[in-house]
Amino acid sequence: MIKGPNLDDTIVALATAYGKGAIAVIRLSGTKAIEIVNSCFKGKDLSKVDSHTVHYGFLMDKESIVDEVMVSLFKAPKSYTTEDIIEVSCHGSTYLQDKIVQLFIKQGARMADRGEFTLRAFLNGRVDLSQAEAVGDLINAESEKAKQVALSQMRGGFSKQIKVLREKLIHFASMVELELDFGEEDVEFADRGALSALITELQTSIHGLLNSFKLGNVIKHGVPTVIVGRPNAGKSTLLNALLQEDRAIVSDIPGTTRDTIEEVLHLEGLSFRFIDTAGIRESEDVIESAGIERTREKIDQAHVVIYLFDASTLSKEDFEADLAKLKSYDKPYLVLANKTDISSPEWLSDQALLAISAKAAEGMDEIKSNLLQLMELNNIDNNAIIISNNRHFQSLSNSAQALQDVVNAIELSISGDLLALDIRRALHSLGEITGEITPDDLLGEIFSNFCI
Amino acid sequence: MIKGPNLDDTIVALATAYGKGAIAVIRLSGTKAIEIVNSCFKGKDLSKVDSHTVHYGFLMDKESIVDEVMVSLFKAPKSYTTEDIIEVSCHGSTYLQDKIVQLFIKQGARMADRGEFTLRAFLNGRVDLSQAEAVGDLINAESEKAKQVALSQMRGGFSKQIKVLREKLIHFASMVELELDFGEEDVEFADRGALSALITELQTSIHGLLNSFKLGNVIKHGVPTVIVGRPNAGKSTLLNALLQEDRAIVSDIPGTTRDTIEEVLHLEGLSFRFIDTAGIRESEDVIESAGIERTREKIDQAHVVIYLFDASTLSKEDFEADLAKLKSYDKPYLVLANKTDISSPEWLSDQALLAISAKAAEGMDEIKSNLLQLMELNNIDNNAIIISNNRHFQSLSNSAQALQDVVNAIELSISGDLLALDIRRALHSLGEITGEITPDDLLGEIFSNFCI
Repeated sequence: MIKGPNLDDTIVALATAYGKGAIAVIRLSGTKAIEIVNSCFKGKDLSKVDSHTVHYGFLMDKESIVDEVMVSLFKAPKSYTTEDIIEVSCHGSTYLQDKIVQLFIKQGARMADRGEFTLRAFLNGRVDLSQAEAVGDLINAESEKAKQVALSQMRGGFSKQIKVLREKLIHFASMVELELDFGEEDVEFADRGALSALITELQTSIHGLLNSFKLGNVIKHGVPTVIVGRPNAGKSTLLNALLQEDRAIVSDIPGTTRDTIEEVLHLEGLSFRFIDTAGIRESEDVIESAGIERTREKIDQAHVVIYLFDASTLSKEDFEADLAKLKSYDKPYLVLANKTDISSPEWLSDQALLAISAKAAEGMDEIKSNLLQLMELNNIDNNAIIISNNRHFQSLSNSAQALQDVVNAIELSISGDLLALDIRRALHSLGEITGEITPDDLLGEIFSNFCI
Repeated sequence: MIKGPNLDDTIVALATAYGKGAIAVIRLSGTKAIEIVNSCFKGKDLSKVDSHTVHYGFLMDKESIVDEVMVSLFKAPKSYTTEDIIEVSCHGSTYLQDKIVQLFIKQGARMADRGEFTLRAFLNGRVDLSQAEAVGDLINAESEKAKQVALSQMRGGFSKQIKVLREKLIHFASMVELELDFGEEDVEFADRGALSALITELQTSIHGLLNSFKLGNVIKHGVPTVIVGRPNAGKSTLLNALLQEDRAIVSDIPGTTRDTIEEVLHLEGLSFRFIDTAGIRESEDVIESAGIERTREKIDQAHVVIYLFDASTLSKEDFEADLAKLKSYDKPYLVLANKTDISSPEWLSDQALLAISAKAAEGMDEIKSNLLQLMELNNIDNNAIIISNNRHFQSLSNSAQALQDVVNAIELSISGDLLALDIRRALHSLGEITGEITPDDLLGEIFSNFCI
């Protein structure tokens, strides 16, 4: 067990998003969770009820009623943290949420740090570190694919693969270290040929995971996408047409903060984030008076570029100039001829492009399937393990480097003690991922990144 | 039972605030709630478990896992709506919140309208209308007093008083109407003297409630408070000093949106909302270059005015000019001499004011107790029934008017049928409050004002 933060006290925090709702849930975990809630609960005696049951009653602050609540109990070890957990469902005013958290603190609970419930689940051995981190990723997931990657990691898929790799390597490490015990005798328990073969196998696996990171990152954060084109090409109209369907779904949900999601297009579980849309929406003409020439900065931030032009007015020469510019950026791009329903010059038919009408929302499905094709998602195995976490990427890179050092050491017939050192480095990096080797300060950093 | 919206279908909605949290709760109510969740739940068979129990499992969309969840069951009639209710606790990503609501809709649930869960509690007779409305008020409550008023109304305190008044009046109405049955016979079953006495009693009660509305309104929405003074008087520093303590508490809670609450001072359960603080914070000198002369508009919006001046520089003449201006606004005000720690002119000692130092945060407690005194809250009975709802105020006003018409009718010895009409009008208005008489469109309006 890692020596970590104090597990003796009982922690409390708002478990649901802060803001007005019908209800809010306040959660406590620790040995005194039941005692603390019971001390201000008017209803059944919570020390005498079964685990996994819900009870109606009033939360009291001395003689005055704080709120009418429902209390759910989860007794150790059958809970998220493996400790006693109580969830209090109160009315969802922000005032009450604050007030009730304060009430429990007054009764002896401590305000939980960010991610501390999940940290406890890890410290108590219910999940490993990469599983715990996946909870944070799951909560931040904004698309189907991001959710799938997080859920698969949370259920241990990724950890298993790392553990298998690591155990094989531990076997060799102990063989090499056994040689050291025999000092001068010059024995080789660890077959150098077999070790090289294992390392090649390990390197292949690790490089596979490292390569999945680029995709994992795009899945996790969305594909930064930009719409460029000359003034009045119809960029704003196109953006609205593309996003319309999505927004209709979202607007059913009361209290939705549209700003944060409305400029994301969800396609087949992948999200395309439209960047710099404020510029498009407010006044296209100011910034973009010189066509796409001044848009290098925007394009630099993007993974995918949508170039839109007004087919009813743009000359072939201007089009070709724009296209040459576009190609020079060396990014996947899509060329859209807008307003072809008004008029369409003859030269257009020679071009590889999509003819659409942003105003009539025609051609949107084609745009969407082309966007997906640009991302080459079709080639991806749905069951492939994908890493999406910067820390994992770093640890895997470190272990790949250490393994390469082992390979070099074998080739140069370096002595066993130096070889053992390189293997230990690789083991260490792999162990960091699942939390078998994790210094306290790293733990602190990981969980403080939780948004909750 | 009022003929209202369809109660046959099963409704679903996000019950917690929309946004990222550790968990989110999605709630279903209706005859098919259990069946719908069961059809996509991998875990125990929910049709066979007890009410008020919680179950771990996976939500499935066909073969793929949507999320790892906890499901709580509340079987009819022991639930909020008196219907079968299921609450699903999922991971708190906004993506999952949307996704799971959509999943249940696909399985046959209908997206709930705003306030529809509470509407069902009312239509199914679990609460009366004013109790149902109090749920909305409770969720919007931003201070202890506002919460108390809502909670007391939710628990029926206010409805009881209205019902007692109304029943007494119904008795008289039936007497008067009995007279009508006897047509020409000129009998008087309803003693006009006793009726007048009852009406006087009713009027007193109703006027008491109507008078409580001003306070109720202030309790519900906070006291609009403004800080005025010449440039560099220290208004911004004062605001920060006053709010500091409050903010320290709030900042413990992760994800708190500070903007919405930081300019509210909570004192003894009452909130003072500082208005136009943007002006103060950004550039006091631009708008307020002419001292408090240009601040009439701000003061018009305020209930309480705090006037602050720099005692180390302001001349007695300028002070007196400001004070005369301040008095002319005819609002409760507080005069604060700032920077008295730097220097304090002799003429100050003659004035009725508080000497403070905003920079050193000295005198804050005195300001707070003076603010409370200005509101004359000391005179308020903690157990008094306070109305805070515009609709109730309107209905009570209407019934007061109708009662006055009855009084006039009695004085003029108007015939029984007209008298009966006025009494019916008063009864109608009182009945609207508790929902005994409530047209469908009014119901729609009331519940659509729910934020959830």
